[in-house]
Amino acid sequence: MQTLLWNDLTPSEQQNALVRQAQTIQNSLSKQVQAIKQAVRDDGDTALFDFAKRFDNTELTSLNVSQADINKAGEQVSDALKSAIQTAYNNIHAFHSAQIPIPIDIETMTGVHCQVITRPIDSVGLYIPGGSAPLFSTVLMLAIPAKIAGCQKIVLCSPAPISNEILYTAKLCGIDTVYAIGGAGAIFAMAYGTNSVPKVDKIFGPGNAYVTEAKRQVLADGVAIDMPAGPSEVLVVADDFANPAFVASDLLSQAEHGADSQVILVTPSKTLADKVAGEIDRQLTLLSRATTARLALDKSRIIIADDLTQCLAISNMYAPEHLIINTQNPRTCLDDIKHAGSVFLGAYTPESMGDYASGTNHVLPTYGFARTHSSLGLADFYKRMTVQELHPSGFLALAPTVQAMAQAEQLDAHKLAVTVRIDELKS
Amino acid sequence: MQTLLWNDLTPSEQQNALVRQAQTIQNSLSKQVQAIKQAVRDDGDTALFDFAKRFDNTELTSLNVSQADINKAGEQVSDALKSAIQTAYNNIHAFHSAQIPIPIDIETMTGVHCQVITRPIDSVGLYIPGGSAPLFSTVLMLAIPAKIAGCQKIVLCSPAPISNEILYTAKLCGIDTVYAIGGAGAIFAMAYGTNSVPKVDKIFGPGNAYVTEAKRQVLADGVAIDMPAGPSEVLVVADDFANPAFVASDLLSQAEHGADSQVILVTPSKTLADKVAGEIDRQLTLLSRATTARLALDKSRIIIADDLTQCLAISNMYAPEHLIINTQNPRTCLDDIKHAGSVFLGAYTPESMGDYASGTNHVLPTYGFARTHSSLGLADFYKRMTVQELHPSGFLALAPTVQAMAQAEQLDAHKLAVTVRIDELKS
Repeated sequence: MQTLLWNDLTPSEQQNALVRQAQTIQNSLSKQVQAIKQAVRDDGDTALFDFAKRFDNTELTSLNVSQADINKAGEQVSDALKSAIQTAYNNIHAFHSAQIPIPIDIETMTGVHCQVITRPIDSVGLYIPGGSAPLFSTVLMLAIPAKIAGCQKIVLCSPAPISNEILYTAKLCGIDTVYAIGGAGAIFAMAYGTNSVPKVDKIFGPGNAYVTEAKRQVLADGVAIDMPAGPSEVLVVADDFANPAFVASDLLSQAEHGADSQVILVTPSKTLADKVAGEIDRQLTLLSRATTARLALDKSRIIIADDLTQCLAISNMYAPEHLIINTQNPRTCLDDIKHAGSVFLGAYTPESMGDYASGTNHVLPTYGFARTHSSLGLADFYKRMTVQELHPSGFLALAPTVQAMAQAEQLDAHKLAVTVRIDELKS
Repeated sequence: MQTLLWNDLTPSEQQNALVRQAQTIQNSLSKQVQAIKQAVRDDGDTALFDFAKRFDNTELTSLNVSQADINKAGEQVSDALKSAIQTAYNNIHAFHSAQIPIPIDIETMTGVHCQVITRPIDSVGLYIPGGSAPLFSTVLMLAIPAKIAGCQKIVLCSPAPISNEILYTAKLCGIDTVYAIGGAGAIFAMAYGTNSVPKVDKIFGPGNAYVTEAKRQVLADGVAIDMPAGPSEVLVVADDFANPAFVASDLLSQAEHGADSQVILVTPSKTLADKVAGEIDRQLTLLSRATTARLALDKSRIIIADDLTQCLAISNMYAPEHLIINTQNPRTCLDDIKHAGSVFLGAYTPESMGDYASGTNHVLPTYGFARTHSSLGLADFYKRMTVQELHPSGFLALAPTVQAMAQAEQLDAHKLAVTVRIDELKS
C-alpha cells in the first residue's frame, strides 16, 4: 500500500489519490455482453443451455431447479451453518421489517386530502453470483426484503451448479423458483423472458463486470435495476485508539474480495499507519486468498491527514461503499458523514458483521454512487404512489388557484376541467 | 377516439389496446443527441451559446440569468397569479414536508444497533421545459422538495428566453442559480459541467424527446436522474354516476399536452362512453389547443369493460401515470390499484388539481414505469445510508454466526476480522 501525506499533495494529486480504477475494458466487454443479449433474445432457452456449458462448464437438462433438489439441499448443510444462517435471517428480517413505510395521509387544506401509499413491485429477479465462494448471504439480503414487501413473483438465478447453501437459504426465505443460469445471460433472461424464465419487472443483485454491464444494458431498455455497480471498496478512518490488527483485518476483508477491490485507510496518525502496514504483512500469511488480496493492496492507499475532521472530509470526497470509523468516539463522527453506503462504528463493528448478520443490507452503492444512491432497503421493492381526493369544499377553495395557473400556462382544458365542475356545483 | 368492447377482444388485441405508441424516432434522435453531448463536452459554453441561437432563436450574452433579472421578474407577474402560486406553494410544501423520513433505529439483537439515516443529495439540477407554455408549476414540483431535503446546490436550467413566471417562482422557492439553457444541451451541461454551469449529482425534470434521450444517455454514464420518461398519459375509470362533461374535460386536459399524449377511458357503461364522446366534441370547440388535442385523441381509446373490477384490472395492466377514478364510491377502488403514478379520487378531483396545487407532485412515472417507479417525492432528493454499531456483548453474541458464514463462503479475512477481536476481548 502506498502511503500519502494528504497536505503535501496538490489538489489534483489529492483527486488522484481517491480515484477509482477506471473500468477500462468497457468497450470490448460491452460488445461481448451485447452478443449475449442478442443470443438470449433470439434463441431463448437454447442460448442459456449453451452458456451453461461454455461458461459454467455444466451440461444442464433443465434450467429450472426442481423442488426435490431444493428440498434436498438442506441435508448437505451442517447444523452449525444452518443455525448461523437462521440468526442472520432473524436480524436482517428485523431490520428490514423496521423499514415498512408508514402511510402519509394529510389535508394540505381543508377538504384537500393527499396521501402517499406504497405497493410492492409485482415481480422481481434476484441474481446470486456463483464462483469459488457462492454467496448465499446475498440470498438473505435480496430475498428477505422482497418477501416483506410482498412481491408476488420472486425468481432467483445463479450459475450452475448451484451450491446447497444457496438452495437451502432460498428455501428458508420462501423462494421456490430457482434457475441455474449465470452471468449476463441470467440478467437478459429475467429482463426479457424466455420459454422457461419469466420476465420480471426489476432485477437485483451483485455480479462481475459482465453482470454489471448486462444490468446497465437492460436499464437503457427501460428495465428497472437495483443500482449501478462497480468493484467493492472500503474506507477506514482510524486514530491512535484503534487496534492496528483490527484495522488490518478490515482492510484485508475487502482486499480478499477481488483484485479490483479498493481499500483505503485514512488516519491522522503516522504511528497507526505504520503499525497497520506491519499487521497487514503479518495477517496476509494467514489467508488462503493472499494472492488476490495482494493485487488489491498494490493499488490501495494509506492517507495521512491532519486531523479527524480532515479524515471525514476525505471520506466524503471518496463516498465509500463501506465506511469503518474506528476511533475513540466514533458516534461523534456520524453528523459529518455525508456520503457512504453503510457505516460501521467502533472497534467491535468490523465490516464482516454487516456483510453477514448485523441486519443491515450488504448490497450497497459502490464506485462513488453513494453520493446519489441508497443502501439497498425495503423501499427498493416498493414504489410510492400518491393519492388525492378533494371534497367539494376543498375543490371550490382551490379552484381559483388552479384556474389562474392553468391560464398562465395556456392550458385551456386544464382550466375547463375546473370550470365545468364549478358550474355544476353552483347550478 | 376508438371504442372497444374489452371482452370481444382476443388477448393479443387486448394487449394492443393498451400499447403505447412506440418511441420510433429513437435511433436518429439518439444520434442527434449524442452530437449535442459531444459538442457540450468538447466546446462547453461555446456550444451552449450556439444552441441557444439555433434552437431557441436567442442571442445570449450570458448563460447565467442575473440576480437583477430574477428579482425584476416578479414585477411582470400579476398579483392574482402570485397569490395562486403562493397557495400552490403552501400545499406542495405541506405535502412534501410530511414526507420527511423518520430515522429508523433498532437493536436487532442486544448490543447490535442498526440504523437507517438519510442525507440530502449535495447538488441537483432542475430542468424546466420552455416553449409556448412555460411550466412554472414544474419549478414548484422540483424546487420545493430539493429545498426541504436540504440540497446544498440547486441549479435550474430552462430555454431562453425564460418567462417571468418561471423566474418569479424560482425566487419564491429560494433558487438563485438559473441558466438560460434548453433541451439536451442543458442536461449535458449539468451532467458534465462547463465553465459557466456547475456539474451536479442528480438531474430532475420533464422535457421533450430530446431531453428524455439526453437523460437516458447521462444515466448510462453513471449520472443519476429522477426517472425514465415517455409522453404524458391519463386513464379514467368512470361509471354511470360520473358526469360526462367532467370525464371529457379530464381526457382533454391530457390530450392538450401534446399530440403524443395518450388518454384512455375505461368504463362498464356504454351509455357513459357515448355521452363522453359527445361531450369531447362539444368541449373541443372551446379549446385553443384543439388541433393538438385532436391528434392525441385520434390515437386514444374508450374501452368498455364488464364491471368496475375489470376496469381496475385493465388499469393495472396499463399502469397509468395519472389515474382518475370517477365512480360512485371511488375510495373503495383504492385497494385494487396496484400500479399508477398518481390517483385522483372522485368527481371533484380533476387531474389539473394535482397538476398544480393539491400538494402532490406532478412529476410521475409514464410509459408503464409506474410498475416499478415512484411518483417523485422528497425521497428522491435524499439517499439512505445504514449505520451499525456493535457493543462488545453484541459482537461476541454474533461472532460465531459471522465466523461460520464467512468460512462457508471461503472468505478467510472476513472471519479473521472477527477472530482478532475475539482474541483481544478474551485476553
